[in-house]
Amino acid sequence: MKYRIGVDVGGMSIKAGIVGDSFAIGAKKSIVTMPNKPSAEIVRDIAELIKSIMSENGLTPQDIDGVGLGFPGSVYDAKGVVRYCCNINLINVPIVKMLREELSIDNVKISNDANCAALAETTYGAGKGALNSVMLTLGTGLGTGIIVDGRMLTGHQSAGAEGGHMQIDMKGPVCGCGKKGCFEVYASATALIRQVKEAMEKNPDSLLHEIAKTDGLSGKTVFIAAKQGDKVAKRVIARYIKYIGAGLLNFSNIFFPEVIIIGGGVSVQGDLLIKPLQKYVAKNIYGSEYNPKIKVVAAALGNDAGIIGAALLCR
Amino acid sequence: MKYRIGVDVGGMSIKAGIVGDSFAIGAKKSIVTMPNKPSAEIVRDIAELIKSIMSENGLTPQDIDGVGLGFPGSVYDAKGVVRYCCNINLINVPIVKMLREELSIDNVKISNDANCAALAETTYGAGKGALNSVMLTLGTGLGTGIIVDGRMLTGHQSAGAEGGHMQIDMKGPVCGCGKKGCFEVYASATALIRQVKEAMEKNPDSLLHEIAKTDGLSGKTVFIAAKQGDKVAKRVIARYIKYIGAGLLNFSNIFFPEVIIIGGGVSVQGDLLIKPLQKYVAKNIYGSEYNPKIKVVAAALGNDAGIIGAALLCR
Repeated sequence: MKYRIGVDVGGMSIKAGIVGDSFAIGAKKSIVTMPNKPSAEIVRDIAELIKSIMSENGLTPQDIDGVGLGFPGSVYDAKGVVRYCCNINLINVPIVKMLREELSIDNVKISNDANCAALAETTYGAGKGALNSVMLTLGTGLGTGIIVDGRMLTGHQSAGAEGGHMQIDMKGPVCGCGKKGCFEVYASATALIRQVKEAMEKNPDSLLHEIAKTDGLSGKTVFIAAKQGDKVAKRVIARYIKYIGAGLLNFSNIFFPEVIIIGGGVSVQGDLLIKPLQKYVAKNIYGSEYNPKIKVVAAALGNDAGIIGAALLCR
Repeated sequence: MKYRIGVDVGGMSIKAGIVGDSFAIGAKKSIVTMPNKPSAEIVRDIAELIKSIMSENGLTPQDIDGVGLGFPGSVYDAKGVVRYCCNINLINVPIVKMLREELSIDNVKISNDANCAALAETTYGAGKGALNSVMLTLGTGLGTGIIVDGRMLTGHQSAGAEGGHMQIDMKGPVCGCGKKGCFEVYASATALIRQVKEAMEKNPDSLLHEIAKTDGLSGKTVFIAAKQGDKVAKRVIARYIKYIGAGLLNFSNIFFPEVIIIGGGVSVQGDLLIKPLQKYVAKNIYGSEYNPKIKVVAAALGNDAGIIGAALLCR
């Protein structure tokens, strides 16, 4: 049996997993990311992580079918170059070439991490069996991964699939990218927390204050308050659903996927977030009288999606 | 030599063309659309048009490689069914089956007309050689056709590629589809004429009035006035460019095409529309410091794009 290795590179940690034929993860190991090191050292850290997970599991390069890596940022898949990596010092680094030499493994592939997650969820997770899917990861930012006719959408020189910077309000608040009213500014977890803070300022009597005092203010706060009946929290969630919904309708009109997969911490809020989103899309989708239905589901693979998707790159 | 027949079905006319190996059009013929006839009669009209262009050119079914048809509306390509056709009485019509029997030609294919235009322009026109392209047709509405890795993007049951209904302003004017602030509401030729009318009401001294009085108010009026130095017209065009630009940036972030092709009557305004759009995209594209450039060009095939693209469906 041959194994593949998937590596999920993040700002906080770099996670590697050994993945078998059915793409179940056999072993996992992670290290802390040192984002400000010289890029050659970051690459060496990644290579060492891969070598150590191999040796700890008694595997040699001959046992490995391929190594795939997902990065948060702009990756030129076909050239094997990380152009730019969010918060990590990797700029125009020919990482595939470097790892091939370092590992003595030929089949090394890279892509954007949101693409990897979408590939994993559509192959083995919440979108299993779909030929067309869109996955949103609602986190600090808003990542999108898109599968078209069973293949990852990457665009020219893999510079596409940046759906978080789709403008949904020309007069909206300024985004980190410089444009106004990007989808990310409304629908990321960061955006939700900002919306909760604004609601708290306007509503000193809301339960949100008490919950935030006890547990700290996070993406969960507003859902805890809503479950306890807080009207302000319910209003914030209702508006957040419309914001996410606006983006989902745009993706639906453009891609008409069979399934939209919602990932990130807030995606566990089934009754409070996923179900209302399902209703919102069903009600507002263009041509609902003659077009097929679009499923909206929560991601199923959790944090493993990045590793599994990266391993899938070297199929 | 084998020929293909491309048919471009529109609200005003149905055009057929005989297309050779290099996809040059050898002969053309068109009839007036009778949009309110029973659907069986509309299909018969189309069949008669195809038969007559064949017989007039001495061709029998054995000489024909295939027949392709483009429709303005929702088409289920793989099933050969026109689900819904804008302003034409074709609802859930299994037109491929009907034409196969009527014509004794097996290879009959259908798709949306904007998809056909994008396929033609990307294969033989302004986007020749590109693997990834987006084509906008700015007319009464706003049609989009998208090529991903050399293949037409259609989505699940070919219900996608409706980029005209991408919302770019959540608080914008209501669109015909019921949503607010769709791209079409800002960037179609209809939208431009509305914007010109509004500017005329506010500016009774603008040259626009005189030109509209002589030639009638059309998509050209504002460009004629701008060429004569009218400041109001220049302001309207500057804003229209920002509106189109907003959509182009969204498509760029999502698809990162090599080329964006602008079709429709206004696309002939090279210096006043296409060049400023090129500048707008170059300046505002996400990640311009590390990503490749995106070309913005005017469509090259004019009204023939529909026929050529339809013929390309049956490759």
